[in-house]
Amino acid sequence: MDFAKGHGTGNDFVIVPDLEDALPLKDAQVAALCDRRFGIGGDGLLRVAPSDDPAAEWFMDYRNADGSIAEMCGNGVRVFVRYLLERGLATGPEVAVATRAGVKNVVVEDDGLRVDMGPAVFGPPSQASVEGFTWPGQAVSMGNPHLVCHLGDEAELEALELFHQPRYDEAVFPDGVNVEFSVGAAPHVRMRVHERGVGETASCGTGACAVAAVALRHAGQDTGTCRVDLPGGTLTVTVTDETVYLAGPAVIVAEGTFRF
Amino acid sequence: MDFAKGHGTGNDFVIVPDLEDALPLKDAQVAALCDRRFGIGGDGLLRVAPSDDPAAEWFMDYRNADGSIAEMCGNGVRVFVRYLLERGLATGPEVAVATRAGVKNVVVEDDGLRVDMGPAVFGPPSQASVEGFTWPGQAVSMGNPHLVCHLGDEAELEALELFHQPRYDEAVFPDGVNVEFSVGAAPHVRMRVHERGVGETASCGTGACAVAAVALRHAGQDTGTCRVDLPGGTLTVTVTDETVYLAGPAVIVAEGTFRF
Repeated sequence: MDFAKGHGTGNDFVIVPDLEDALPLKDAQVAALCDRRFGIGGDGLLRVAPSDDPAAEWFMDYRNADGSIAEMCGNGVRVFVRYLLERGLATGPEVAVATRAGVKNVVVEDDGLRVDMGPAVFGPPSQASVEGFTWPGQAVSMGNPHLVCHLGDEAELEALELFHQPRYDEAVFPDGVNVEFSVGAAPHVRMRVHERGVGETASCGTGACAVAAVALRHAGQDTGTCRVDLPGGTLTVTVTDETVYLAGPAVIVAEGTFRF
Repeated sequence: MDFAKGHGTGNDFVIVPDLEDALPLKDAQVAALCDRRFGIGGDGLLRVAPSDDPAAEWFMDYRNADGSIAEMCGNGVRVFVRYLLERGLATGPEVAVATRAGVKNVVVEDDGLRVDMGPAVFGPPSQASVEGFTWPGQAVSMGNPHLVCHLGDEAELEALELFHQPRYDEAVFPDGVNVEFSVGAAPHVRMRVHERGVGETASCGTGACAVAAVALRHAGQDTGTCRVDLPGGTLTVTVTDETVYLAGPAVIVAEGTFRF
């Protein structure tokens, strides 16, 4: 099976071109490809299939590393478009991609790719606990649930041990939550993230959007642009009255064939 | 750059064919290839180069994931030979491989590959501590240092949190130590391992040899065969009066090209 591998700020994906839509991937096959030691390895898999939607040529069949179906991924769709561009399957400066969360428009910029992520919806204040310490936080939905906790300083951020899911209020987050820990203030923050069901990751697109929205609001701005430094690189988030844009690098690093 | 990826019981390697010895890999290039999110990902890298030693056709230039030079790796040399066999660069049933620890003879078996790892040398009793608990252990050298701790039962083994280097007696292990935790008795044990400088891994060939040698001795046998179940699969270790043999599966899962 042909594959490529790419990442956006360290959020990495196995890409499987299936231009004729002839390759229904079973969960176990996705899991085998995404396994970091027994397979290629990736946070998820992006199957490139033809779109049924007349507004987009290609459909991003995004799967979690365990094979389960997922709706959208801000870094994933940017890597997906990078692959289309490099393979000559699309041309910029705007590329429409069909996803399970609707058609997403990705814009090719000088230094990366930008995607409209939809609005950030603020929820109630809440809190997260790690190893006996508890921090206040802010619930934010980017379609998926986030809890943004602001820490005192960089040393506190670095010392965090995110091996386990931080504890949270299950009444506020009945479906679990991605927990972000941030330092700094808009227009420049730094963050780490624990993704529900995954663990700490190098980058999380929706998490960066949530952190930036909270940082901007904390600075008294309902709209604006904020740089977000993650362990895997830097993303730029722009909040407008209508939506949130996520921008940053996306690269393809390898292509090859995989055998099951 | 051409690459392949393979593993032996989940101990995984990026393989770089350099049949003309024309590709001196810088540390940073090795690290880029072995990075699991920004590259292909592997516990180490195996460069396939011509051997200067008349006793072997190919030299295994084995590098740690950070690019530093390493002498030998029991799972690595088995994956290396699997690659040679599949590419038609060697034929069984015996393949000699030049390594920095001398020429190693690998034997092709029905269900895997077997390599002569050299003898297990017993050191003093010692102990390891994880999160406040301390277990007695046995120092064993397989060329590299090991500390084998026998636990009471499977539940204790599963509950271990090996996110950090276990604490050990630096007077006994001045260069650090790989720490194994095992349950069961010869001829069938189960283990987990924390590799120094790496963390918990799915498999460690020398660690399996050390655990088996201790288990056999504990059963009153100086020689014999012991099955060792690791998180990544099963290895079979045979201890003779002269040496220790490590046997088990080794597979190539992908081939392709990588761009830096």
